[in-house]
Amino acid sequence: MKDIVSKVIRGDSRAIARLITLAENNDPVAAEAMKRIHPYTGKAHVIGVTGVLGSGKSTLIYELTRWYRRQGKKVGVIAIDPTSPFSGGALLGDRIRMSELAGDDGVFIRSMGTRGMLGGLASAVYDVVEILDASGKDVVMVETVGVGQAEVDVIKIADTTLVVVVPGLGDSIQTLKAGMMEIADIFVVNKADREGVDQTVAEVENLVDITSMDNDRKTPVLKTVARDGSGVKELVDEIEKHKKYLKLTKEFEKQRRLRYEAELVEIIRKRLMKLIFDESTFKEKIENLLDKISKKEIDPHSAAEEILSKILK
Amino acid sequence: MKDIVSKVIRGDSRAIARLITLAENNDPVAAEAMKRIHPYTGKAHVIGVTGVLGSGKSTLIYELTRWYRRQGKKVGVIAIDPTSPFSGGALLGDRIRMSELAGDDGVFIRSMGTRGMLGGLASAVYDVVEILDASGKDVVMVETVGVGQAEVDVIKIADTTLVVVVPGLGDSIQTLKAGMMEIADIFVVNKADREGVDQTVAEVENLVDITSMDNDRKTPVLKTVARDGSGVKELVDEIEKHKKYLKLTKEFEKQRRLRYEAELVEIIRKRLMKLIFDESTFKEKIENLLDKISKKEIDPHSAAEEILSKILK
Repeated sequence: MKDIVSKVIRGDSRAIARLITLAENNDPVAAEAMKRIHPYTGKAHVIGVTGVLGSGKSTLIYELTRWYRRQGKKVGVIAIDPTSPFSGGALLGDRIRMSELAGDDGVFIRSMGTRGMLGGLASAVYDVVEILDASGKDVVMVETVGVGQAEVDVIKIADTTLVVVVPGLGDSIQTLKAGMMEIADIFVVNKADREGVDQTVAEVENLVDITSMDNDRKTPVLKTVARDGSGVKELVDEIEKHKKYLKLTKEFEKQRRLRYEAELVEIIRKRLMKLIFDESTFKEKIENLLDKISKKEIDPHSAAEEILSKILK
Repeated sequence: MKDIVSKVIRGDSRAIARLITLAENNDPVAAEAMKRIHPYTGKAHVIGVTGVLGSGKSTLIYELTRWYRRQGKKVGVIAIDPTSPFSGGALLGDRIRMSELAGDDGVFIRSMGTRGMLGGLASAVYDVVEILDASGKDVVMVETVGVGQAEVDVIKIADTTLVVVVPGLGDSIQTLKAGMMEIADIFVVNKADREGVDQTVAEVENLVDITSMDNDRKTPVLKTVARDGSGVKELVDEIEKHKKYLKLTKEFEKQRRLRYEAELVEIIRKRLMKLIFDESTFKEKIENLLDKISKKEIDPHSAAEEILSKILK
């Protein structure tokens, strides 16, 4: 165990992968290892990348990774989107392109799925961010598909959140209205060689004007064509500017505290659920209660109270 | 409290709305009321409707509702999609159309958002399904946007799950491959007046053939144009057929038990999280631990253990 920790800290990719798997499986060894690596964390800039299906998030992350590598920075990528090329969910061409990064020791890519009933949305993601951070990655990008809970979660993990939209997809602007405005630190209008890009940029800027009236920082709106790399350098600069802004305004510490809080909630949730539902102690009891609920001899709330009375002080 | 329970059971819309709000706010009165209504539940057919943004789920639910109403059935609709017209998130025209249902006492519509850090994805949805069921609704439709965790959750709640796709949206087939195949009881190719519908139907049927080879039931693929009601009658018939299939094969009971299990997990999760993070007992302790984590004096896993040791037997 000491071995895996020191290897992770030295940036050994195989050790990183092994520790991530242990963390995903809620292995007690992982919990111990996570305790030891915590002192080595806090240096990586965590960038959340969210946007609707087909907005080109993965290609953008690929191009950002190449830029960071040229600057000599080490990069971690966590894909929580099941349709991401990083997750093997997309077109073959995309997958091949992404896999080019796999040969580079300064890049670590991991895709994460949803982990069944007790897991929730990639609940090990906090551990994975800490592991990549401790392993010396300068930048950790977290890709989530931007609908529902995922984009709310990404803001808790990320220092800087990019919201990616594309021209012509009228629905994406609808989505923005419904909640993405608050989470974006930078808007990226990708596929900017498409028709209607100026209208999309205008729409997004209009929304930014309305919603950031009272803020001291106006959310920038950038155009990129990830597929040929256009605008990616400007995006890298803008991300750096945001990081400086966070440091200057002490928002960085607040943001980090928010992440630790979310992580603490998640660890506690996972431990309690594992204690109740994964360990054999309560299996029979729960099966029995489910039978009774089905027969309407007891209701779910009373059943829950019965289980809780067995574990709580 | 007795009053609200008896009113809900009589189908009083204002009482239903009030009890749902209490449940969403984790009010202890709601927990008590939920215990009392449980014996009146189990009759409603719960239909999950999931699909990507812009697939026309809401319009389809609107048309299904009109069909069920013509059959004299009472209908409940729960929209967990923040971009749904039922949630007020969509185009004005859609919203106006949906609101026509609001004047009908046999229809109850409720939209639910994500409820912040401790809530997760519409965690009260199980309670809402039970409330609508107890209130005498024959059909309860649950609308979720089909990406990420939501569509995995909907299968736990629904007896019958509809997965809605549209022609031409190449990405939607990608999504199917990535996990929607297993959850669909019926595929609906909506907007079937669009170009490319035959190809989309063929693609979906092809996927169905591959994935349901070992099943005794082949997932049907239906075409609809929700906007003018075409194909909706056939869909209503197919949903009825699926219900009969569930009853015949005893799958109905298995499915219900799965829902109760998910509900039990959710109630327990919510109670524990409320106990730890919402009640004032641990506020100071947690703030203190977050400070220490930030200063790297303690790691999140050890902090979690410290909190758990205070509540667990």
